[in-house]
Amino acid sequence: MPLLGWARGYSREDLSGDVVAGVITAILLVPQAMAFSLLAGLPPQAGLYASILPPIIYAVLGTSRTLAVGPVSVASIMVAQALAQAPTTTGHLTSALILALLGGALLIIFGLLRLGLLANFLSHPVLSGFTTAVAVVIILAQLPSLLGMHLPISWSVTQLPQLLTGLHWPTVILAAFAVALLWLSASPLARMLHALGMSARSARAASRTAPLVVVLASTLAVVALRLDGAHGVAVIGDLPTDLPTFGLSVPTWEVVAALLPSAALIAIVGYVESVSIAKTLASRRRQSIDPNQELIALGAANVGAAVSGGMPVAGGFSRTMVNHDAGARTQAAAIITALLVAAVVWLFAPLLAHVPKVALAAIIIVAVSRLIDVRTALAAWRYDRVDGAVLAATALGVLLLGIENGLVVGIVLSLLSYLWRASRPHFAELGRVPGSEHFRNVLRYTHLQTWPHILLLRVDEHLSFANTAYLEQVLMQRVAHKPQLEHLVLVCSGINGVDFSALEMLLRLAASLREAGITLHLAEVKGPVMDRLRDTVLMQELPPGRVFLSAHEAVETLAPRSAGECSVQVTPAA
Amino acid sequence: MPLLGWARGYSREDLSGDVVAGVITAILLVPQAMAFSLLAGLPPQAGLYASILPPIIYAVLGTSRTLAVGPVSVASIMVAQALAQAPTTTGHLTSALILALLGGALLIIFGLLRLGLLANFLSHPVLSGFTTAVAVVIILAQLPSLLGMHLPISWSVTQLPQLLTGLHWPTVILAAFAVALLWLSASPLARMLHALGMSARSARAASRTAPLVVVLASTLAVVALRLDGAHGVAVIGDLPTDLPTFGLSVPTWEVVAALLPSAALIAIVGYVESVSIAKTLASRRRQSIDPNQELIALGAANVGAAVSGGMPVAGGFSRTMVNHDAGARTQAAAIITALLVAAVVWLFAPLLAHVPKVALAAIIIVAVSRLIDVRTALAAWRYDRVDGAVLAATALGVLLLGIENGLVVGIVLSLLSYLWRASRPHFAELGRVPGSEHFRNVLRYTHLQTWPHILLLRVDEHLSFANTAYLEQVLMQRVAHKPQLEHLVLVCSGINGVDFSALEMLLRLAASLREAGITLHLAEVKGPVMDRLRDTVLMQELPPGRVFLSAHEAVETLAPRSAGECSVQVTPAA
Repeated sequence: MPLLGWARGYSREDLSGDVVAGVITAILLVPQAMAFSLLAGLPPQAGLYASILPPIIYAVLGTSRTLAVGPVSVASIMVAQALAQAPTTTGHLTSALILALLGGALLIIFGLLRLGLLANFLSHPVLSGFTTAVAVVIILAQLPSLLGMHLPISWSVTQLPQLLTGLHWPTVILAAFAVALLWLSASPLARMLHALGMSARSARAASRTAPLVVVLASTLAVVALRLDGAHGVAVIGDLPTDLPTFGLSVPTWEVVAALLPSAALIAIVGYVESVSIAKTLASRRRQSIDPNQELIALGAANVGAAVSGGMPVAGGFSRTMVNHDAGARTQAAAIITALLVAAVVWLFAPLLAHVPKVALAAIIIVAVSRLIDVRTALAAWRYDRVDGAVLAATALGVLLLGIENGLVVGIVLSLLSYLWRASRPHFAELGRVPGSEHFRNVLRYTHLQTWPHILLLRVDEHLSFANTAYLEQVLMQRVAHKPQLEHLVLVCSGINGVDFSALEMLLRLAASLREAGITLHLAEVKGPVMDRLRDTVLMQELPPGRVFLSAHEAVETLAPRSAGECSVQVTPAA
Repeated sequence: MPLLGWARGYSREDLSGDVVAGVITAILLVPQAMAFSLLAGLPPQAGLYASILPPIIYAVLGTSRTLAVGPVSVASIMVAQALAQAPTTTGHLTSALILALLGGALLIIFGLLRLGLLANFLSHPVLSGFTTAVAVVIILAQLPSLLGMHLPISWSVTQLPQLLTGLHWPTVILAAFAVALLWLSASPLARMLHALGMSARSARAASRTAPLVVVLASTLAVVALRLDGAHGVAVIGDLPTDLPTFGLSVPTWEVVAALLPSAALIAIVGYVESVSIAKTLASRRRQSIDPNQELIALGAANVGAAVSGGMPVAGGFSRTMVNHDAGARTQAAAIITALLVAAVVWLFAPLLAHVPKVALAAIIIVAVSRLIDVRTALAAWRYDRVDGAVLAATALGVLLLGIENGLVVGIVLSLLSYLWRASRPHFAELGRVPGSEHFRNVLRYTHLQTWPHILLLRVDEHLSFANTAYLEQVLMQRVAHKPQLEHLVLVCSGINGVDFSALEMLLRLAASLREAGITLHLAEVKGPVMDRLRDTVLMQELPPGRVFLSAHEAVETLAPRSAGECSVQVTPAA
């Protein structure tokens, strides 16, 4: 129970840090929770309820001290897209609860099976391309709320005047104020307050209240100027004044089958996002994250969301950063945040009805615009064209094929590129650095010593079904180019494993070489590989071929040095 | 044009070998072609026509000298299963032609894209489990023809008497004779003929005529005893007496979409089977196979099958072995075989109508029973539990979920197991072999020299998204266990690549270690990896960490030896 880890030595300093962080995070969370429910196409309480029980469950089970669990932007837009394709007989809210339930159950199962490492199969380029494109999708989805109008799917420049007349000006004016305030608060405002004499930390904390200020000011404007009536500014509308009630309608098998793929993708993306931010912050404080326990904690939080009327949850990037920077030291901060949200729902729900949707849209747009990351895309492209292409393909896939399909395209491409690389391993013919026991690639170093009757080949890859055919082909070609060859020494220092397909290939190779009068030897076979090979037919078939400790030993045995050469060796190089 | 390779130097000896092999293969092919069409649920001419044009096309384009292209058992049963699920508006024969067309087109495209290596992703265990299970499926599918009855899907021992009364005794008696003769001919007959004074080669050739003898004898019995009338022995029935006519009905997009997945799997399995047998035989004669040209040749052969009324084709294992053993030296043998099949169709079609189906069922069952390979399954299980499990899962998948689904299960499992292994790379902490420049795993060798302020860690795997999270976790754990640590040297001799995800991980790692007062160094970075890393942020972030040529150089720099130790080094070990 990770809770006991931090609760046992809980101190007064912990409490003061946690209270401040809990309050600041709650101030950010209330408007975000409502905004993300609207983004998901759900009533606002789906996000508020998801901010109460789930973070408390995570506080008990999770291994991160500062992760802020609740509704998040990426999961919300994925929920929206999943609901758009869901069976229409089930209501949207019910479907969202089932998504949380199924996703949570899957994460718990993965956690019990200790499959935390599987999350790594979302590579960095896939995740980066995915996040950037999803941010664009979210911004496009929020534009109608921001401008108070329906936007056509496609439009040309000639339609621009017509579109401009369609703008709902009261909404646009509110939007302009909200976006400006939120942009400014990001860092110019904190710098300004700091310059005016406020401490850096208080200035940062004050700037964090911007979303609350936006919500309060715009709601006041709506109420005072009656913008929601005659002026037609869209508002959230009535909220239930109750705390969440517990219960769950058990879904039918058809509904489960229809929602399971989406639930799995939403849960996995949420998990990966949560763990990556949790790890980053944990390493800053020399704490550690257990990926398998995280699966269970986030799974339980999602099940908690489902039974208390909340949408799918995850650890949010921006909110966790705020919580951490505001001084949170343990998950007590998250519990304080959750209790504050519950208090707001219980006491102030009638007031929330007047919050204009445009304020929430502005909060979302400013938050997710920080997720658009062109720098990483350029760095990936410069470092490795394949990784860059995978990143671009994932982003394009999300934009053109939808979020889930784009993600699947990215995962499949990154796996294929991985296998493609493994299928064409790097090879080196080795020669000896004169006067040493070192062997190097003959194409990279000059003056290396080689022998006409010995070929030393180093293969730089795990031998497996993915590369056996290629290896067999290249080895036979190399052999064909050395007419005086008597000994082929496979230097295995780069071979970290030999699977069954490769074992069969080595057997074939040894037999083919023997027919051609060439003996196959192995050298520098690593311990774990040798353990495997020891009892196989290969070891019985290899002689007169041998397994040498090193390339050096192989050469000493197959081409003994003269005494003169030997004296070169003992001269120290440095 | 590979044809020119062998046609240019064609000799009299080539001709005599090719004529004998061509005739013997034709004797085997005519009954097999009819048998495989029935197995696929198609009229007999679908197999006969597939034995005429396609091998001639392969003879012109293919790089194997002895591969016998035509209908094969595995592709036939896959066609049967695909047709069972195909849209009913298209006739079975038309659908089979479309399968050949689509599969052929795909292979040609793969060939032009030079994707021959992709076929390796069918690993040895997957292929072995698949073939064994498909052989079982084929035998079960032929049992009703062999016993002259419909078999219930499941039956209990109490139903056995009832089932036995359902046997069609004339058919069963024919079946018993046919199976007995075919079993005997496999090797006992050849040995017996050899013992009676026939040359070993002639004896083997004579035993190869067994399928023809079975077909002729059983057909004679049917005609003489009028078994097909009152006695109800099933026969092939009328065949068209024409040679194939050329033409193709262009399929609609819906039909293409419905048949494409099956067509792709049939074509890929056929390709892999063809290339593996072609490679085995080519290496015996020091010839070579070009996997990309094979894609084009087999693709064109399938397109040829489609336009001449034939079912999908591939290089058959047993027929190729017969062709090779009978002395075929070039693809001229295949052309002779094809012309003989054409002659049979043209001249003897009315006689073929009386061939009993039971004879063909016996030929198929005896042929495919040799594909059941328990020895490889046991060897795979002994060598590697994971490979053994993949083999078993593929076989079970084929038996329980159908051929295509089983194959997909096998491919997915083998890819997952590959990634799973890559995600938990082998690690070694290194120490120096006293008096040498060699470094070895401290867990595997005793008396190695280590240093409290230096940790030498060798990672034995390509660094990639699949293993970055695990590596980061393990590296930080190792560091935490060495309180006096100042230098972490990552020995990269086993690292054959660093992808973008891993580059980001190394950057994070260097930063985290620096905060803890530890310097990260690299050693033995391979040429291609260094080329990549040279211009990255990592190389700018690394200092004061360094890139050492070897672990030896790292230790010499970070823990200089005393003069006394130095003298130990120059004492030769052997």
